[in-house]
Amino acid sequence: MKALWLENQQLQLRTDIPIPELLPGEALVRVVRAGICNTDLELLKGYYPYTGVLGHEFVGIVEQGSEQLVGKRVVGEINAACGECRYCRNGQPTHCENRTVLGIVNRNGAFAEYLTLPIENLHPLPDNVPTDAATFTEPIAAALEIRQQVSISSGDRVLVVGDGKLGQLVAQTLALTGCDLWVIGRHQEKLANLAARGIQTGLAEAVIERSFDLSVECTGNREGFAIARRALRPRGTLVLKSTYAGQLTFDASSLVVDEITLIGSRCGPFPAALDLLATGKVDVQPLIQARYPLSEGLAAFNHAQQRGALKVLLEI
Amino acid sequence: MKALWLENQQLQLRTDIPIPELLPGEALVRVVRAGICNTDLELLKGYYPYTGVLGHEFVGIVEQGSEQLVGKRVVGEINAACGECRYCRNGQPTHCENRTVLGIVNRNGAFAEYLTLPIENLHPLPDNVPTDAATFTEPIAAALEIRQQVSISSGDRVLVVGDGKLGQLVAQTLALTGCDLWVIGRHQEKLANLAARGIQTGLAEAVIERSFDLSVECTGNREGFAIARRALRPRGTLVLKSTYAGQLTFDASSLVVDEITLIGSRCGPFPAALDLLATGKVDVQPLIQARYPLSEGLAAFNHAQQRGALKVLLEI
Repeated sequence: MKALWLENQQLQLRTDIPIPELLPGEALVRVVRAGICNTDLELLKGYYPYTGVLGHEFVGIVEQGSEQLVGKRVVGEINAACGECRYCRNGQPTHCENRTVLGIVNRNGAFAEYLTLPIENLHPLPDNVPTDAATFTEPIAAALEIRQQVSISSGDRVLVVGDGKLGQLVAQTLALTGCDLWVIGRHQEKLANLAARGIQTGLAEAVIERSFDLSVECTGNREGFAIARRALRPRGTLVLKSTYAGQLTFDASSLVVDEITLIGSRCGPFPAALDLLATGKVDVQPLIQARYPLSEGLAAFNHAQQRGALKVLLEI
Repeated sequence: MKALWLENQQLQLRTDIPIPELLPGEALVRVVRAGICNTDLELLKGYYPYTGVLGHEFVGIVEQGSEQLVGKRVVGEINAACGECRYCRNGQPTHCENRTVLGIVNRNGAFAEYLTLPIENLHPLPDNVPTDAATFTEPIAAALEIRQQVSISSGDRVLVVGDGKLGQLVAQTLALTGCDLWVIGRHQEKLANLAARGIQTGLAEAVIERSFDLSVECTGNREGFAIARRALRPRGTLVLKSTYAGQLTFDASSLVVDEITLIGSRCGPFPAALDLLATGKVDVQPLIQARYPLSEGLAAFNHAQQRGALKVLLEI
């Protein structure tokens, strides 16, 4: 089958990749749409040494493995858990010690004609959620993870650093809490997307230092981290939502003196994300910037790597 | 009066320091005993640009300013708050925006014959708490701050990194939670102190990676931080309890992938600390390594700076 294959930080369009073997408990899914995520771009830069088919944001149609799901449009949780380790037994399958992760760790991903995932990872799509929009289920779920980790009250002052794909979704989900939300970024047109939804926006220079209860770092770069840190009041919380290639440096004493909390945040709840899409509480249409067929996947990646690019979709 | 004065990272014994002026709402305290803390040593190294009398762990006798307290032995909370800023109004005076901090920020400290503090900062000592032991009230309170920030359950696997003064107090207070506690350090005789109290101890090499729910970094050095990080299971919490001169570097992506929480932790509750001393639930006697008169304060600092030194007290 056709697939975008990553090896030694080189991406190739290949046509000789075998259709994944169907294992017990898994389903074979024909991919119809997939989204390029910043994590894919970081994998290309070498943030984690992965070899295989890239891609983890997708919508597909089940072809084999589950009578109930065959023929249905589905999205899929990306962590395939063992079900037996202490994390699985504790209800934390996203931290399974033996997990494979779609297009990230030891499992071929979604930039291909077919993928396999455990049946329990799949969620049928509500009829009223368009396929394009549903490719955002995974990043919306990741955005919702913040609300599982940190209690956010109406009126809390919250700063989202970054107006890119992830920042936009984080902002839209946080806005639903009724918090006093600000988003800062570098791109007037992207900030305008959010302003149109009633979200307060500004440039980085506008941030009042030591004034926010919570900041969410969505840029994946050192400067964004520094802004997110400076914005926090004492006893504030900084959520790290992006993956980074490389190390971050911080002033540990100021973290101690101000009793700051730093939290890493990854995958979140798919059902809640689908609910937001089905009820129209999150609008992803303005985030879609381009569509490419899988056969032009390399061009799609070139596009996605451009500074300031929003979501690039692959039609498969 | 006599005092140990810090200026340009140089410590001097001076005899020309005026007795602090008594301001409304404050008490004049004659210092009788004081302890040298790692923060004092970090200030000497320049972690924060402070000029003035050093010292913040003390026992004294109130001489003026409070009828109720005159003649009584007291300990004192080190943050002198304004009472009016948003942190003070929110019941977080240790984070007051306008605070001075005894011997650390804009307020002459305890390595002197006299100090002043707001009356509300002072706590009379229970009669059964010896003066030497009471100099540990401030660091015991700081150790107890961890339990205010993180919920620790009986059976949680907790690692304390560092067997020095702070590590010993943190370990003793955490042991009271019934958690499954381990302390690692470099000094067999210090670990033996803890082992004698029934606490599990070991050398750094003995730490099983990714196995602890909570780790507390009490060394103030990069290596200690790295051990505390490696020890944590996914979704674990790392408490930074030490002040550091300089920056820390960490792998931000691994923090995100493992959804680790990092928390800075500073000053804690004095009443709870005094209660532990009065009821004998914390034993500080083995931590006292030497006593010097204030006039030999420079020798006392030389002693405290030796690798592996425990608490050095000043008799004033």
